[in-house]
Amino acid sequence: MTDRAQLIPALKNIATRLRIDSIRSTSEAGSGHPTSCMSMADLTAALFFAEMRFDPKDPHNPNADRFVLSKGHAAPILYAAWAEAGAFDRGELLKLRRIGSDLEGHPTPRLPFVDVATGSLGQGICAAIGTALNARRIKSSYRTYVLIGDGETAEGSVWEAANVASLDGLDNLCGITDVNALGQSRATMWQHDMAQFQRRWEAFGWHAIVIDGHDMNAILDALADAKQTTGRPTMILARTIKGKGVSFVEGKDGWHGKPFKKGEEAERAIAELEAQRVPADGGVDLARQIPKPAAAAAAAVTPRPVGPPAYKIGDEVATREAYGAALAKLGEADARIVALDADVKNSTFSEKFEKAFPDRFYENFIAEQVMVGAAMGLAARGAIPHASTFACFLSRASDFIRMAAISNVNIKLTGSHAGVSIGEDGPSQMALEDLAMCRAEPNYTVLYPCDAVSAERLVAMASYRPGPAYIRTSRPKTPVIYGNDDAFEIGGLKVLRQSAQDVVTVVGAGVTVFEALKAYDKLKADGTAIRVIDLYSLAPIDAAGLTAAARATGGRLITVEDHYAAGGVGDAVAEAVAGAGFTVHRLAVREIPRSGKSEELLDRYGISAAHIVNAVREVTVGAR
Amino acid sequence: MTDRAQLIPALKNIATRLRIDSIRSTSEAGSGHPTSCMSMADLTAALFFAEMRFDPKDPHNPNADRFVLSKGHAAPILYAAWAEAGAFDRGELLKLRRIGSDLEGHPTPRLPFVDVATGSLGQGICAAIGTALNARRIKSSYRTYVLIGDGETAEGSVWEAANVASLDGLDNLCGITDVNALGQSRATMWQHDMAQFQRRWEAFGWHAIVIDGHDMNAILDALADAKQTTGRPTMILARTIKGKGVSFVEGKDGWHGKPFKKGEEAERAIAELEAQRVPADGGVDLARQIPKPAAAAAAAVTPRPVGPPAYKIGDEVATREAYGAALAKLGEADARIVALDADVKNSTFSEKFEKAFPDRFYENFIAEQVMVGAAMGLAARGAIPHASTFACFLSRASDFIRMAAISNVNIKLTGSHAGVSIGEDGPSQMALEDLAMCRAEPNYTVLYPCDAVSAERLVAMASYRPGPAYIRTSRPKTPVIYGNDDAFEIGGLKVLRQSAQDVVTVVGAGVTVFEALKAYDKLKADGTAIRVIDLYSLAPIDAAGLTAAARATGGRLITVEDHYAAGGVGDAVAEAVAGAGFTVHRLAVREIPRSGKSEELLDRYGISAAHIVNAVREVTVGAR
Repeated sequence: MTDRAQLIPALKNIATRLRIDSIRSTSEAGSGHPTSCMSMADLTAALFFAEMRFDPKDPHNPNADRFVLSKGHAAPILYAAWAEAGAFDRGELLKLRRIGSDLEGHPTPRLPFVDVATGSLGQGICAAIGTALNARRIKSSYRTYVLIGDGETAEGSVWEAANVASLDGLDNLCGITDVNALGQSRATMWQHDMAQFQRRWEAFGWHAIVIDGHDMNAILDALADAKQTTGRPTMILARTIKGKGVSFVEGKDGWHGKPFKKGEEAERAIAELEAQRVPADGGVDLARQIPKPAAAAAAAVTPRPVGPPAYKIGDEVATREAYGAALAKLGEADARIVALDADVKNSTFSEKFEKAFPDRFYENFIAEQVMVGAAMGLAARGAIPHASTFACFLSRASDFIRMAAISNVNIKLTGSHAGVSIGEDGPSQMALEDLAMCRAEPNYTVLYPCDAVSAERLVAMASYRPGPAYIRTSRPKTPVIYGNDDAFEIGGLKVLRQSAQDVVTVVGAGVTVFEALKAYDKLKADGTAIRVIDLYSLAPIDAAGLTAAARATGGRLITVEDHYAAGGVGDAVAEAVAGAGFTVHRLAVREIPRSGKSEELLDRYGISAAHIVNAVREVTVGAR
Repeated sequence: MTDRAQLIPALKNIATRLRIDSIRSTSEAGSGHPTSCMSMADLTAALFFAEMRFDPKDPHNPNADRFVLSKGHAAPILYAAWAEAGAFDRGELLKLRRIGSDLEGHPTPRLPFVDVATGSLGQGICAAIGTALNARRIKSSYRTYVLIGDGETAEGSVWEAANVASLDGLDNLCGITDVNALGQSRATMWQHDMAQFQRRWEAFGWHAIVIDGHDMNAILDALADAKQTTGRPTMILARTIKGKGVSFVEGKDGWHGKPFKKGEEAERAIAELEAQRVPADGGVDLARQIPKPAAAAAAAVTPRPVGPPAYKIGDEVATREAYGAALAKLGEADARIVALDADVKNSTFSEKFEKAFPDRFYENFIAEQVMVGAAMGLAARGAIPHASTFACFLSRASDFIRMAAISNVNIKLTGSHAGVSIGEDGPSQMALEDLAMCRAEPNYTVLYPCDAVSAERLVAMASYRPGPAYIRTSRPKTPVIYGNDDAFEIGGLKVLRQSAQDVVTVVGAGVTVFEALKAYDKLKADGTAIRVIDLYSLAPIDAAGLTAAARATGGRLITVEDHYAAGGVGDAVAEAVAGAGFTVHRLAVREIPRSGKSEELLDRYGISAAHIVNAVREVTVGAR
């Protein structure tokens, strides 16, 4: 270990290099946030070169300390630090923000040293909760460091994270707030009033340390203090100067997100910084001294086989209940499966998992953002997290769901209580736009089982399909219609009724499958045959299967969904069959619903069996 | 004024009646949350019958105190209080949650005394900020009271609200937390540890008062204390018992959202409560003594006429900049126009409005949930609020956007920096699912101008169209293509190029309009004529105009959008023309994009002029 007398000048010089790199790369790019990097340069130098244990050549080592840059717009200094550590050639930094480079404007996991994409403020700290929880899960001593901006502190998700971290006693988590007092458009809420920050973090149960973020000794002391603090997380509140190191921008408004002009302006700034190099013992090469994490045992995880479902056809089981049962079963077979909920575990039935595996269940109380954010962090470190709440409240975490897509991270979300079929609780509790939300993202798997068997199968399949997934479950009990050995596949569908005489294909999903089956019976009694499809996989979607059904039924397709008209089942089917020239007749909820009985609502909003029967008659006028 | 000796027994009896009503209505409905009502009955009685000034027969009086039930699941006691006050017949309470009744499971503004729908926790307190700001705007002394649950305190949006309210010094706002210690599925985070609540609210700058929420004297004292507190909002932290008043449910887990069984169980509970009636002076009728608000001058607001835009064809102006200019112009003509932003006013250009009308501009710092929530409260009280941020960060408030739909409240949202055309900042800053989010809601107006003239016209039209609206603006400068006197309409479109020889219709919106125009030129040079449409109104949509164009161009339609494929322009057009049997060929972003130059990205992700040219050739193979 290098002593402080040697360490500090070496760290100061690294900080200066990181500032220069941040300026050079953004000036070359012609855009970016150099001044936001410069305020955190001393903190970054200390973290990377005197605190964290990691291997620059193997950032994914399971025991390596994690660093999450929650203020993602400071990406250039993150890249500079990894280059300084030897992860890649410094020359790459000059490709910042170019289309051929993975050094993007904000960090994404295209880079091996980035766990989750940041750039939407207030999310990195939630993900950091997940990486900290993961250390407990795998019994590793790695620590998680997360750097947030002061402006970022206004985001409610930061306080969701603050609560959860202190309740969970995450002393392996160390936050650092870069209090540079300037936001994008103006001074921040509390500027340099450090007491405002301190009293908030202390009130939320954190150990809070106020320091001068440019005093290297103070930074090292605070990090040591954090490491020795047990039973609660630490937040280091670092008073900093935006643009620190370059006199003509230091603490000045109007320099957010603005590069130094390449040429004279940038060179003048760099010259000022160069002049700040301090004499340092030539023998100290901190990058080579980064302590490596403990070697990890090759974690060959082979989940034990899970038996088939054990339901009986005709049993009445809500898909949400089947979800909970499936999760508990998977948990038995695979230790990576974990579950998160937001105080509705007795409605989503994640409580079945909690009961079996209390140590792998994370209660987030009524805080959906940190729930999804923590899931992202857990997933980034190898867990397979299933997060659940009412589907409508997943919209609370919509921006996290978006960023999880950008991260392409392995989270599994399940939203229960979909649609008007929930009944009397009314519209605030009904998810009618959740399919639109998740289908919009190009890499989400979106599944919607209608019965317990398909629910169990799809929960298992979603668990082992890489990338983000969304499973929609329903509140009412529905009859089991599939055999325990029936095969399902992601991107598949089931044709439930068919004959050579079918005049139309009706595509349902979830509760509307049963409305379609009722309509089938009614129409059959009248001598009209229809094809009925259970479209349990919305993304990916079986375009060939849908097109074949359309072709076999005179090009007539009706979709029926317990969801608003835009972005759901109808749109999914319409795009799938458009290439073949087929259009879709859509039954969907088209106005703000109200309280009432489930059946009343299905009928009032046009998605009951009676409406399907009418639609079939309408589209087949003149057919046959 | 009744003295306390008379007041308190009368209030206690009202509280008992409210408890009984909450039980009767939920038992009759067979669902609902009686125990969550019972914990807040004493608080409710004091608020409605000894504190607030309002007219039960005219709840919309502009000077009436506001009450927001943020814990919307306690709706039955809200309804019972208004019935007790004389707003409607008590017998109506027994229709709770029935399809024919406006007394829904959670409150919505279908009821005249509800400003905004609640039931998604943590939102009512944000809306309350808006109603409190509105009092300042109209120079009224009315006060806003908002009751939240203790479990609700976990929502980050509560802390966004806490910050904004204290920064704005909203001493006309009084919060009450019903700390009943039990959430839906388990004990809350801090149960009855009142210090946990107090230190948080104090840290966030509120006057925090801890009381026993069943001690009527203490409640009245706290309300008086709040009223006398200046310069900051007050939070009354009331320790309560869930199910208070009925011994067999008091403080018991397992009674959340569970009605007493109609018959013996309910009657036993009611008998217990009846026995709690206290002797009271028969002459005190608190409902008749509710102080009426000051009569309001008939607020006939006639906005002054706004002149036409004053751009020059060919000028390069970003639509986001035109938005800011339009807003400032509207602000001049109509005092109801207000603006909110989340620390990006220099990017959204709402700063143009702030500069002109600093008193009507509300900075929310980086806290999108409270921004949209406050806009909802402002709108509910007669303002016309425009809230803006990067379009991608509006997804942070997605659940608020959903609840604004349920409220059908008059908010106007503008999201800037749409799509990959923003360039180097990368995917975290690109909105590619915002159209899907807003189109999903059945009552949102969704507009997407491509130039400054249409932006100015559409901002004005959105302002005066009742209900929620979303306007999508773009980062890059685009040429002005419309004349200052060109007419636009909500639900309209513009055919920019047409001839009798058109072989295909290309529908663009925003930046892709210019790609379509470039494609037109290229194809024209090759002897191919295409029709080009600017679809500036996505909801409502001109189905007839699109269908006519499709029909005139051989049924061939191509859409091109700077948005993901699901839920955007392509889906909107596809549904609009499906009835006529036409399908759509869609060009859209189909993978997670990356950093790069705007033009590079438009091309890489398949939505540039070159891709349109290829698509036209593809769909017209064999045509003509």
